[in-house]
Amino acid sequence: MKLKATCTMTVNTAADCPIVAMLRPRSGQAQWIVSDRYELQPWVPTTEYVDSYGNLCQRLVLPAGEMRIEVEVVMEVEDQIAVQPDAPHTPVAELPDDVLLYLLQSRYCPSDKMSEKAREIVGDTPPGYAQAETIRGWINANLDYQYGVSDASTDAMDSLAHGAGVCRDFAHVGIALCRSLQIPARMVVGYLHALDPMDLHAWFEAFVGGRWYTFDATQKAPRGGRIVLAYGRDAADVAFISDYGPQPLEVSNMKVQVSEVTNTAAA
Amino acid sequence: MKLKATCTMTVNTAADCPIVAMLRPRSGQAQWIVSDRYELQPWVPTTEYVDSYGNLCQRLVLPAGEMRIEVEVVMEVEDQIAVQPDAPHTPVAELPDDVLLYLLQSRYCPSDKMSEKAREIVGDTPPGYAQAETIRGWINANLDYQYGVSDASTDAMDSLAHGAGVCRDFAHVGIALCRSLQIPARMVVGYLHALDPMDLHAWFEAFVGGRWYTFDATQKAPRGGRIVLAYGRDAADVAFISDYGPQPLEVSNMKVQVSEVTNTAAA
Amino acid sequence: MKLKATCTMTVNTAADCPIVAMLRPRSGQAQWIVSDRYELQPWVPTTEYVDSYGNLCQRLVLPAGEMRIEVEVVMEVEDQIAVQPDAPHTPVAELPDDVLLYLLQSRYCPSDKMSEKAREIVGDTPPGYAQAETIRGWINANLDYQYGVSDASTDAMDSLAHGAGVCRDFAHVGIALCRSLQIPARMVVGYLHALDPMDLHAWFEAFVGGRWYTFDATQKAPRGGRIVLAYGRDAADVAFISDYGPQPLEVSNMKVQVSEVTNTAAA
Amino acid sequence: MKLKATCTMTVNTAADCPIVAMLRPRSGQAQWIVSDRYELQPWVPTTEYVDSYGNLCQRLVLPAGEMRIEVEVVMEVEDQIAVQPDAPHTPVAELPDDVLLYLLQSRYCPSDKMSEKAREIVGDTPPGYAQAETIRGWINANLDYQYGVSDASTDAMDSLAHGAGVCRDFAHVGIALCRSLQIPARMVVGYLHALDPMDLHAWFEAFVGGRWYTFDATQKAPRGGRIVLAYGRDAADVAFISDYGPQPLEVSNMKVQVSEVTNTAAA
Repeated sequence: MKLKATCTMTVNTAADCPIVAMLRPRSGQAQWIVSDRYELQPWVPTTEYVDSYGNLCQRLVLPAGEMRIEVEVVMEVEDQIAVQPDAPHTPVAELPDDVLLYLLQSRYCPSDKMSEKAREIVGDTPPGYAQAETIRGWINANLDYQYGVSDASTDAMDSLAHGAGVCRDFAHVGIALCRSLQIPARMVVGYLHALDPMDLHAWFEAFVGGRWYTFDATQKAPRGGRIVLAYGRDAADVAFISDYGPQPLEVSNMKVQVSEVTNTAAA
Repeated sequence: MKLKATCTMTVNTAADCPIVAMLRPRSGQAQWIVSDRYELQPWVPTTEYVDSYGNLCQRLVLPAGEMRIEVEVVMEVEDQIAVQPDAPHTPVAELPDDVLLYLLQSRYCPSDKMSEKAREIVGDTPPGYAQAETIRGWINANLDYQYGVSDASTDAMDSLAHGAGVCRDFAHVGIALCRSLQIPARMVVGYLHALDPMDLHAWFEAFVGGRWYTFDATQKAPRGGRIVLAYGRDAADVAFISDYGPQPLEVSNMKVQVSEVTNTAAA
Repeated sequence: MKLKATCTMTVNTAADCPIVAMLRPRSGQAQWIVSDRYELQPWVPTTEYVDSYGNLCQRLVLPAGEMRIEVEVVMEVEDQIAVQPDAPHTPVAELPDDVLLYLLQSRYCPSDKMSEKAREIVGDTPPGYAQAETIRGWINANLDYQYGVSDASTDAMDSLAHGAGVCRDFAHVGIALCRSLQIPARMVVGYLHALDPMDLHAWFEAFVGGRWYTFDATQKAPRGGRIVLAYGRDAADVAFISDYGPQPLEVSNMKVQVSEVTNTAAA
Repeated sequence: MKLKATCTMTVNTAADCPIVAMLRPRSGQAQWIVSDRYELQPWVPTTEYVDSYGNLCQRLVLPAGEMRIEVEVVMEVEDQIAVQPDAPHTPVAELPDDVLLYLLQSRYCPSDKMSEKAREIVGDTPPGYAQAETIRGWINANLDYQYGVSDASTDAMDSLAHGAGVCRDFAHVGIALCRSLQIPARMVVGYLHALDPMDLHAWFEAFVGGRWYTFDATQKAPRGGRIVLAYGRDAADVAFISDYGPQPLEVSNMKVQVSEVTNTAAA
């Protein structure tokens, strides 16, 4: 399907504030950029680099005052995510070199502390896709989607303890539990069609059966219509804006829209 | 300045034809993508990767028949290219590791055969920017810009012998001569505002005074308004389409347009 | 100075156990491998790759039973680490792209929770090297070097709370505090000449004044004679062995030796 | 089998001469470094980086005068190279992204000029391994191994015309012919056990049946006992020393030795 996603926001800073943004998607295996727009008003010189995860990162220094950021992408994406209930666990010895990184514990996914919980959840589920799906289902059934219980310092252990969180927390729990079972897992941030209320979204991917599969613990059932903005080990790597000013950056009026583009509509 | 560049073409193949295209620019040090559009009609699944030079490359298999490719970019670029007549030669010992590659001979730039010619041209010009500029001026003065004398197998030695060529040949001669003087040099392909007749263009960059500078031997004087599509050692690395079908791909109706976008105009 | 470092150990597993080891240093800016030896007894097929931090990583599957691992390196290293008390803070806007990663919070360095503590420690120390050195000195003066208070799940917040830890904990505290002041910092593991008791060691580097500098909070005063085995965001990235068997790997009889090689001695 | 390879040489320069050397192998898929030694006499500060092909490259500035370079490696290698006569052609659409580079023409392998010759040689040989092997056999049968007919500027077209060359030329012809049939091919330099006369050696690899296979047109039949020093598109990328002094570097007394190490012998 063809999706059009728009994200607009106002950023405000009292003094020059260097930022790194991750608001431009890349075409990849399952998504193709038909068109892309990235506007800064007022315009300031900006550079872009590829980080070690392959994400496009935009660097600029916000001048004191207000800036309007508006990004839009029209993307061909998969209607349905791939689902493969019998995909086996990929033995660690057979993982591609660049996937090994996603077995390691990270800031919000202290998988080193979570193997007991993971084993309890998966029970005798066969290793591989089925385990990742069991974890996803368990989170969906047992954690409450709730604003205000978590913040930027909440990790997966905290979220388990709270029994609640938002999309980012659900993803962290899923990633940490998978890793503790030797299933590589990574954070994904992006857009999801028909998300309600609409916002930037986060989910996770697990590497089983020789490839990455999409899992979203905030949803009852698997759904397609996803646009990936960035991949990382966890939320620390994929903030849509990381700011390095003397004061924290103020972001306001953030608005996200995602709609399907029909063939007759102009992109 | 803000430029809008469009490139459209029809490609035709009698049988399935895998291609690698390099038609999507990246934001970089001196250019920022405001918006970008990449349409294939009919649509076929396409992936994109970053090659070892940092270029975005689009991979797809053209089905038998005709496809229309249309790309458009609105880009903030420099009005004027940087010019630094007294930028000194960067000693090889001080070059960044990833620049060393651009000292090596390559398919169309057999710099190993050209140091005598290079020394003759630069005479006692001081090493560095001045040498690269002397080479650029020499090519502009001594080679005829002429279609039909060169083809896809013409290298810099051939072009020197012919005394003529097109933009790609001029760039190859410049690159090869610079390299033979231990000045790293690379091929650039992209768009140039107000090029006449308008087409995709090629020029070169030389690394002196600790950074890359733009040189264009097809122009009397340095000009800005450039959009870089891809970098490489020479034309072998930066074909806008590399095709791997049983028969060569037919490209027709190719049309390139570049215009300045004024602030009041919508992007 | 020329150092010879040897590390030997016995690893024991009841079932096939895939491991990733980081026991082969690379030559770099401040160290040059004169000779290197890496023996596995019994030998099993092993591959090596470069991770996203540039470290050499060895992958193999330990067969059930016992293996002896013996690595040795003779390395030219700096007698003294570089010290530059007046190196200024490098503004985030001027950091190289690939250094930005080291500003981010990570598993053992939750810098997002530590800026208050950092500001308290540095007071009105001028930004840059002096702050990193103040942090290093503070850790050295205020944390007890003590075995048994920390384990593989202890992070920098825990270590601050305990007021004690080992080299890895000291490094984590230093890294997290630096990052919270917008100073990029990274974990280093390797060998240190004349460490007592001798063992593998960990310290940190901070990026100030446009380059990486070495800091070691376990030492009263800066000391050279260091061999770097691996860099990472924290200990999660640089385990000398990461094991992925059904049971944790048993490592025993680990012995580390570092001695100076005089010119007359054979390497 | 376990091989010990030694390469020693004297380099001589009248003035400071920056060089890039490629004399330290990496462990890889089919080779494992047991031990490695790299000595410069006199010692000068040297750094090492990984180039875009994954090779370790040593950078140093030779001071005026004479330096002795001595490298030695003990390596576990394959007794026999892999041979798979029925490995099919890997369709270009299925090649890994990072293999596509090896389809492109390069300095010494102008594959764009050689498809007619390639088709003539392979006739109706089935696409894939069999074609690469037919090319290898054809070169072995039709080119004379002969010193003095080629030099540093000789490319594959020249070698075909001469009907003669040395290992590097044979490899170039093989690579160029393979590429012109849409088979990715790359240059390999290294050591070959029992080569006579012993020297550094060059051969090529072709990517068929989903992986790289070894081909050596200088040998009647496939032989193992190989140590890879470096990979590249052709000889331009893998010079064991690239020198950038005011005068060409003098290399003398070069001696290469390769011997099998038996298990009882000390490494």
